[in-house]
Amino acid sequence: MNETIKLLQNHRSIRKFEDKNLDKDTVQTLVKSAQQASTSSYVQAYSIIGVTDPEKKKAIREISTQAHVENNGHLFIFVVDYNRHKELAAKSDYDLSFDSTESMIVGVVDATLAAENMAIAAESMGLGIVFLGSIRNNPAKMIEILNLPEGTFPVFGMAVGYPVEEGSFKERLPFEAVYFENEYPEFDDVKNVLNDYDEAVNQYYKSRDENKRNDNWSKQVVKTLSKKERLDVHDVLKKQGFLGQ
Amino acid sequence: MNETIKLLQNHRSIRKFEDKNLDKDTVQTLVKSAQQASTSSYVQAYSIIGVTDPEKKKAIREISTQAHVENNGHLFIFVVDYNRHKELAAKSDYDLSFDSTESMIVGVVDATLAAENMAIAAESMGLGIVFLGSIRNNPAKMIEILNLPEGTFPVFGMAVGYPVEEGSFKERLPFEAVYFENEYPEFDDVKNVLNDYDEAVNQYYKSRDENKRNDNWSKQVVKTLSKKERLDVHDVLKKQGFLGQ
Repeated sequence: MNETIKLLQNHRSIRKFEDKNLDKDTVQTLVKSAQQASTSSYVQAYSIIGVTDPEKKKAIREISTQAHVENNGHLFIFVVDYNRHKELAAKSDYDLSFDSTESMIVGVVDATLAAENMAIAAESMGLGIVFLGSIRNNPAKMIEILNLPEGTFPVFGMAVGYPVEEGSFKERLPFEAVYFENEYPEFDDVKNVLNDYDEAVNQYYKSRDENKRNDNWSKQVVKTLSKKERLDVHDVLKKQGFLGQ
Repeated sequence: MNETIKLLQNHRSIRKFEDKNLDKDTVQTLVKSAQQASTSSYVQAYSIIGVTDPEKKKAIREISTQAHVENNGHLFIFVVDYNRHKELAAKSDYDLSFDSTESMIVGVVDATLAAENMAIAAESMGLGIVFLGSIRNNPAKMIEILNLPEGTFPVFGMAVGYPVEEGSFKERLPFEAVYFENEYPEFDDVKNVLNDYDEAVNQYYKSRDENKRNDNWSKQVVKTLSKKERLDVHDVLKKQGFLGQ
């Protein structure tokens, strides 16, 4: 197993950082590593906003309700971005559009490929990271804070910094429950594997140092997915020019 | 610059592979590396299907119209997947739903984080990869081929294999055109940077060995984004139980 694979397989989210900002060189290295990820048809349908203004960080923390959104080495917001393409098209004979579901998928995929590269680059430098889907608690407010124009949407954030905790390793679904050959299986074929996994996750929650509880994966995700949340994401996307057809 | 960052910043897509399949251990290492990527609220809203059946590979090549979809070391299809959550919820008191735009974003992000980890793991082992958004040319047919149930959607593929070409390095947008501090800029502030970039990309297309042409980034992406394609993605997602609200 090479060093990169060890790094990938040892990922854990970090939510407590030293009070020390990333320097400019580090930010540049992270962004450049992010940018070299694959991008759909060379479109590069995303931008990255680094939030350093303390007032803005505080405002975003209020949306996320997570202290590490304010207290970190650097806060990156990943933005689906067709605005620059729209501006460039205005001078051309082409009738550019990005209001299909397909275009939104392209933008989300491009932003996410870049972000995961940044995560790995950061971890390879000894930094810690955590993704922040929580900015979608209030995408309209995020758009206001970052002054985001038509053709853009803030899809998630990432807090990066010098870790002051190790983070805990969370066991993923068993290989047999996530990888299938040639076709999707019947649920009965994976049921037992999921039961074993629930058992293992339950042991983890019972045995960890902080926030011990009696829980397992199935219970947890079923509960999470039964919450009707972030239903405004759709309307905000429409307002930004997406999902028109 | 450490080895992992060198690897990230040296990425290039590979579209010609040796006629040699990945072995089982390699597939397992790739999938396990993929799985350890971050996942929204531990939901793990994706599955990975490895396509080894020659008939199925041929059928998918017809959708993608790309030879490397059939001729590679292994073909992975990344699937947004809430099916297992739905099955688990059926035995619970919770009323699970995944038909919001938010849920679709979560699934696409989860699948993409995993896929980029796989890409990096593969490249760290000396393998080559290329992403295949082209499977979305006919998502309904992909669903039929892979027998994908409600709550799933084939978002993209990845061909992996032993490279027989170096691939070409494609210069990304300048740092100043993609990274902004604290707020989104006016287009006038990045216009000149984009012009310089177009110039550089034009030089690249003129100077490369194969497929020389007079082109630049702006022209290329504006043309790409003016094609009205893959408009069925929306209806297929709805049919699979997504985007209901």
